[in-house]
Amino acid sequence: MKCSDLGEFELIARLARTLPHDPSVVGGVGDDCAVLRSRDPSRYLLFKTDPVIEGTHFVFRCSKKTKVPPATPFQVGWKAMARNLSDIAAMGGVPRWALVSLGLPAQTDVKAVDGIYRGLNACASQFGALIVGGDTSQTSDKLFVVVSLVGEVEKNFLKLRSAARAGQRVFVTGALGGSRRHKHLTFTPRVEEARWLAKNFPVAAMIDVSDGLAGDLRRLSEKSRVGFDILADAVPVSAAAEKMSRTDRRSPLGHALRDGEDFELLFTMDANYADDLLRRWHRKFALPLASIGVVTKFPDRIRFIGAPTSEVTGYEHFR
Amino acid sequence: MKCSDLGEFELIARLARTLPHDPSVVGGVGDDCAVLRSRDPSRYLLFKTDPVIEGTHFVFRCSKKTKVPPATPFQVGWKAMARNLSDIAAMGGVPRWALVSLGLPAQTDVKAVDGIYRGLNACASQFGALIVGGDTSQTSDKLFVVVSLVGEVEKNFLKLRSAARAGQRVFVTGALGGSRRHKHLTFTPRVEEARWLAKNFPVAAMIDVSDGLAGDLRRLSEKSRVGFDILADAVPVSAAAEKMSRTDRRSPLGHALRDGEDFELLFTMDANYADDLLRRWHRKFALPLASIGVVTKFPDRIRFIGAPTSEVTGYEHFR
Repeated sequence: MKCSDLGEFELIARLARTLPHDPSVVGGVGDDCAVLRSRDPSRYLLFKTDPVIEGTHFVFRCSKKTKVPPATPFQVGWKAMARNLSDIAAMGGVPRWALVSLGLPAQTDVKAVDGIYRGLNACASQFGALIVGGDTSQTSDKLFVVVSLVGEVEKNFLKLRSAARAGQRVFVTGALGGSRRHKHLTFTPRVEEARWLAKNFPVAAMIDVSDGLAGDLRRLSEKSRVGFDILADAVPVSAAAEKMSRTDRRSPLGHALRDGEDFELLFTMDANYADDLLRRWHRKFALPLASIGVVTKFPDRIRFIGAPTSEVTGYEHFR
Repeated sequence: MKCSDLGEFELIARLARTLPHDPSVVGGVGDDCAVLRSRDPSRYLLFKTDPVIEGTHFVFRCSKKTKVPPATPFQVGWKAMARNLSDIAAMGGVPRWALVSLGLPAQTDVKAVDGIYRGLNACASQFGALIVGGDTSQTSDKLFVVVSLVGEVEKNFLKLRSAARAGQRVFVTGALGGSRRHKHLTFTPRVEEARWLAKNFPVAAMIDVSDGLAGDLRRLSEKSRVGFDILADAVPVSAAAEKMSRTDRRSPLGHALRDGEDFELLFTMDANYADDLLRRWHRKFALPLASIGVVTKFPDRIRFIGAPTSEVTGYEHFR
């Protein structure tokens, strides 16, 4: 059997099944980051790695077939850092230290490497992370950048995927879909917003939307053993998703539900706080925040009310 | 200018020059691991990432040109973990948590992925590290495994490359050269030996020999601003280096000095402790330990007494 027959999630699940349990691990495979008991009794360490690979997560040259716009080296570095920051944010945490592993084809222009470093540093410093080391290796074909990130979170601010409960409201930041037109290379990881949420509101479950809203609701559903009723009309659809739907056969909502790499925050919270949250959020941030539905008690039942059921499958890298 | 014109060390140095300084970083680019001030006043965090790339660090099929033996998936996983463990060991530290990032061509057999996971887990568990998460992504061509490892070290056990001082003796474990015949896929990271050394002796500088003895002496020399007089006859030459020298035009010593991926410990220590060290070492470990020379006060002067000067260049991945 080939990897392409299994899909990314199943490949990760195979790894998860082989791992021993240990009291130092609060959460691990299956959440945005590993959550580790450090020697500080008030905080957990967060630990995450996520690669950016030429041809999979970006292209340097425009492909006529996929019409994906090419990335600059700066954008490749930015994205490689921002993806990891987004995962630390989704746990309610603060990024601290990053390492960079670069795989470079021998013919790579050194200027491109410098551009990648600039993008990595710009993104890290904007969000309070520090690059503390790196490594380069030669690869024969496609360039890759793997960032590893250590962060920390006060124990009472930790947000897990498993904390959604029936009756809670569901919220999502920003606008979804069509990220590969541009946003996936330049997006803002929601570190500041997530910290503000964790400090000011009793957010229950939180995740960053990286595999499409439908796919990431599925993940929350599995971890929390709940279902979701989402109002299709309430899902914030990006202008890029609208544009893409004009040239392909998919609806703007389809893009918003299934496209990957939005890197927005998706979270649940007791309905009583919803009005206060929305009022204070809009005073504080220009970024949209939408209340898109409710958590239900039916595990694995994810309904998009008002949307065709053909549009609810999540995005995976392997297919 | 292409990356192949610069070499791996210069590419890493270019990154190092762009990084901001921060009081939380005790050591970083230029040592085996990043050394970070954690909230525990008695310990540092160690943080390392190191990739293993098909075609660069291993092959799945034997190449007639290079005669490098092919790796099993288990060995690929083992090597990816062991390289990082070796770096934690060289700082005097204890490995704790690992993350795995896999880049997989779509046609990769799932059995190979399972084999890689088995190798990763076998190596991690043997040396006290815990895999706490992972990620898979599709790559178009060559498989890669990037392990990121967090460890810790008591402040008084930390070993840096910068601590070599004139007059100290130089020691190396094991036997050097010819690793790519076999050892680079199955080697034992010297975690136990390094901890024993750090706990029992006033080891000064320590490094793992990953780019050839000559290359890693150069690194110690740069960081400590010292020189080395090494007795060529005292350098332990592996049986694999002897074998390789029969079929190529290089001497066994040339292999021992310049081949990469030995993953042995190279360290310096006050000469007064040498006899006691060697006596106690041989009682404790079957692994050889050789006293190979002395630290001198002449920065950048690395002499191999009794060896032709043509054999002192370090190994780099890019060339």
